[in-house]
Amino acid sequence: MTKVLIAGAAGAMGQKAVQLVNSMDDMQLTAVLAPHLADNQRTANHLADNVAIYHALDDVQEGVANIWLDFTVPSAVYDNVKFALQHNFMPVVGTTGLTDDQEKELIEFSENKHLGGLIAPNFGMSAVLLMKFAKKAAQYFPDVEIIEMHHADKKDAPSGTALSTAKLIDQVRPSHQTSPDETETLANVRGGDYHGIKIHSVRLPGYIAHEQVLFGGAGEALTIRQDSFDRQSFMSGVKVALQKVATLDHMVVGLEQIL
Amino acid sequence: MTKVLIAGAAGAMGQKAVQLVNSMDDMQLTAVLAPHLADNQRTANHLADNVAIYHALDDVQEGVANIWLDFTVPSAVYDNVKFALQHNFMPVVGTTGLTDDQEKELIEFSENKHLGGLIAPNFGMSAVLLMKFAKKAAQYFPDVEIIEMHHADKKDAPSGTALSTAKLIDQVRPSHQTSPDETETLANVRGGDYHGIKIHSVRLPGYIAHEQVLFGGAGEALTIRQDSFDRQSFMSGVKVALQKVATLDHMVVGLEQIL
Amino acid sequence: MTKVLIAGAAGAMGQKAVQLVNSMDDMQLTAVLAPHLADNQRTANHLADNVAIYHALDDVQEGVANIWLDFTVPSAVYDNVKFALQHNFMPVVGTTGLTDDQEKELIEFSENKHLGGLIAPNFGMSAVLLMKFAKKAAQYFPDVEIIEMHHADKKDAPSGTALSTAKLIDQVRPSHQTSPDETETLANVRGGDYHGIKIHSVRLPGYIAHEQVLFGGAGEALTIRQDSFDRQSFMSGVKVALQKVATLDHMVVGLEQIL
Amino acid sequence: MTKVLIAGAAGAMGQKAVQLVNSMDDMQLTAVLAPHLADNQRTANHLADNVAIYHALDDVQEGVANIWLDFTVPSAVYDNVKFALQHNFMPVVGTTGLTDDQEKELIEFSENKHLGGLIAPNFGMSAVLLMKFAKKAAQYFPDVEIIEMHHADKKDAPSGTALSTAKLIDQVRPSHQTSPDETETLANVRGGDYHGIKIHSVRLPGYIAHEQVLFGGAGEALTIRQDSFDRQSFMSGVKVALQKVATLDHMVVGLEQIL
Repeated sequence: MTKVLIAGAAGAMGQKAVQLVNSMDDMQLTAVLAPHLADNQRTANHLADNVAIYHALDDVQEGVANIWLDFTVPSAVYDNVKFALQHNFMPVVGTTGLTDDQEKELIEFSENKHLGGLIAPNFGMSAVLLMKFAKKAAQYFPDVEIIEMHHADKKDAPSGTALSTAKLIDQVRPSHQTSPDETETLANVRGGDYHGIKIHSVRLPGYIAHEQVLFGGAGEALTIRQDSFDRQSFMSGVKVALQKVATLDHMVVGLEQIL
Repeated sequence: MTKVLIAGAAGAMGQKAVQLVNSMDDMQLTAVLAPHLADNQRTANHLADNVAIYHALDDVQEGVANIWLDFTVPSAVYDNVKFALQHNFMPVVGTTGLTDDQEKELIEFSENKHLGGLIAPNFGMSAVLLMKFAKKAAQYFPDVEIIEMHHADKKDAPSGTALSTAKLIDQVRPSHQTSPDETETLANVRGGDYHGIKIHSVRLPGYIAHEQVLFGGAGEALTIRQDSFDRQSFMSGVKVALQKVATLDHMVVGLEQIL
Repeated sequence: MTKVLIAGAAGAMGQKAVQLVNSMDDMQLTAVLAPHLADNQRTANHLADNVAIYHALDDVQEGVANIWLDFTVPSAVYDNVKFALQHNFMPVVGTTGLTDDQEKELIEFSENKHLGGLIAPNFGMSAVLLMKFAKKAAQYFPDVEIIEMHHADKKDAPSGTALSTAKLIDQVRPSHQTSPDETETLANVRGGDYHGIKIHSVRLPGYIAHEQVLFGGAGEALTIRQDSFDRQSFMSGVKVALQKVATLDHMVVGLEQIL
Repeated sequence: MTKVLIAGAAGAMGQKAVQLVNSMDDMQLTAVLAPHLADNQRTANHLADNVAIYHALDDVQEGVANIWLDFTVPSAVYDNVKFALQHNFMPVVGTTGLTDDQEKELIEFSENKHLGGLIAPNFGMSAVLLMKFAKKAAQYFPDVEIIEMHHADKKDAPSGTALSTAKLIDQVRPSHQTSPDETETLANVRGGDYHGIKIHSVRLPGYIAHEQVLFGGAGEALTIRQDSFDRQSFMSGVKVALQKVATLDHMVVGLEQIL
């Protein structure tokens, strides 16, 4: 039985994570780090009586858990993960906000301690698999375009997942334009351009979060699509991370690394 | 039995039209206008012995057919259609190249003669229905985007059908932007803009000719898609035109007008 | 300003309807019929002080509203609609449960009184438009299949919308099998059969409620798809019904009749 | 420069293969095995003067090529591949018809000779990648259905690719029904069943060859789709096979094994 501590257990994602760990046969929730969580809120937060509640980082006891599952805030994540590694927790980190330098430092530290861990900007399994498959497919279908579709309230375009997908594809295909001589009779219809990979962003009410990667070759096409209907979807990726982190001997970035 | 003359019977579209009319129980091919077609090419062109072959416009006999089906060239179409109306043929015109003024003049002439006819820039039934449905749907779903996908050799973007679709939609919805405050972190990902209707053009090898119209509303979405796999598809629209033109008392523009 | 009474205002759909009417500039909510709604629940139910609350059908005053919007229960709907027509309300009915005989009787009654009304089994605009378009397209593309996709908890297959779509299509195409001589090497892969229209039901977790109608013709295809992401989607159809019911002089069945 | 012999060079697939090898910078076509190909048909078959033409298997010279690319007929394939291995050609086999026992024997023989090779029932890259990705995704999304769509003239259902996909998925997921308690109110709408994986076959004119694999999980969905528009598509997979076969030390089955 693997023991899990959840940092940020009172937040939206943390609460879902508590219920996830409670539902797993091979995991046991033994502690939470939640600065403002009172003891009489245990039931409302689905915390059994034997779950330790810590209000400050320094109070956390080494050995209380094997895995440190972090859904906190950008300002806390670096200190949390460093503390976790120092005290022999395997970090599984869903919190954003680590700088490239911090990430590098923490990974090196994990390597020295031979301690597994995972930093995942995206725990949505369908999005992570889409990216993994897209990178593979682009080796054989170098001509590719991305269409992402989101609700009308999204404030920026393209989506982070779409741009990440383009970057992964760019690593494996020679940079080129698919139709270099084409004329646009209406400006910008060919979309955004990332090293020759066209990205199209659709914004419509009703839509939630969807992405398609379209590959074309002589006489055939391959399309990979993912739909995120709600946040619940993230937990399937967290589950996989919890189950696999012990097989690693250092911290890696990206859920796709362990699929 | 309705009698049909095909102008341009030796061209790519004209040849398919010959075979279409030959296959219809209620139509009879009685004449063709084909300047360079020799009599010994009848069999190769699927023309029965009793089909009159004319090599010049002025040779065509009034009464030889009821319908004048025109798949010729832009430089000939105006003279052809005028001749047809003057001699009491009902024109069904798949040839492009009429100016707006010419079109207007010919329609007025047809009204005076109470002679039905059809000028159709697009005989693809799936494309025509897509446009018809999109115009209807936009009355109830004013937020809409268009994605068209073509082979990588297409030389311009967007496709004519996509732009026509946007223009039809524009007639029935108040002009507005769906996500006016959005920030593009990669230039042009939001695509081309026709009065607030975003158009996205995808160009990939393998693809042929495809168009999607995406509508979004509170909690729901409606998508209409058409795929053209080959030119054969145009003939289903020609068939409908041949069957319905006699019900008209003047010439109309657009196959969708008679569906 | 058109005045509206909502029967069943405290139910799930009724509450959404209250908010819809409150949001419309040309409609005013003047009364609700809600047997168990206490006066001190006005605020929680978004009811202004001047909205009359009735606890029993016989208490409702003629003239209190022009439209009777009914989201009640099968056991109440017949009495409600009859009462509404007798007292000169125009019924807009989202409640299911009327028998064919009851429906017929109520429609005849509405005809005699020249009173408009609408009985709509489905107020989802995307589903209603899909059905309307599918019926039209089948006139030109008689070969058609339906794929509906729902969450894994749905207890029956096919969906009501899919079957309704098949019935509408069946009205306009000659009954036939598309591939009559085909051999199934795995039983039932060709799906359910409604007069030659194949229906396929997909059940997967994550999915909500989606339907596709696929048409194929020589060299081309047409696909109409609708996605319902949440119940909120029904209200756009209710809005259209409220705005159009006054243009009718008898009660009709199906939102598509007034689009 | 790798030298290639093509067996069956005069057939439909063989002719495309000739043109493929001619177009590759790192491959040279040095010989063909084509029983009925006359020397004066070289030009029509795109064969340079220095390409050896063999009319019988026993005439083929060892050393004339490194790779034996086989697009022949079921009755010839076993003898061809055995001959190839005996004479130190690396076989790349697109011909169907090997029995399981023959396949096993040939593989063992290749292992003993440390000779690479590939037997591929399907060289369509989009189909092969779809199968590869579907098998991977099913590890994380055990609930899955398959929809394949083909032209109306296809004589059997489901397609071989769809069934192969189901078998690959079946290897990595626990056999179960997704909606075991569901009631069919129209028989067979839930499709064919392969160990709990539902398969739906659509047959419509216009369609060519298309397959979708739909995965659903809590709050999300993943869809992989491939479209084959013409036979040309097979050659991209043959190209990959030619380029990779030399890296193998025994014969493998399935193009996906080397991607």
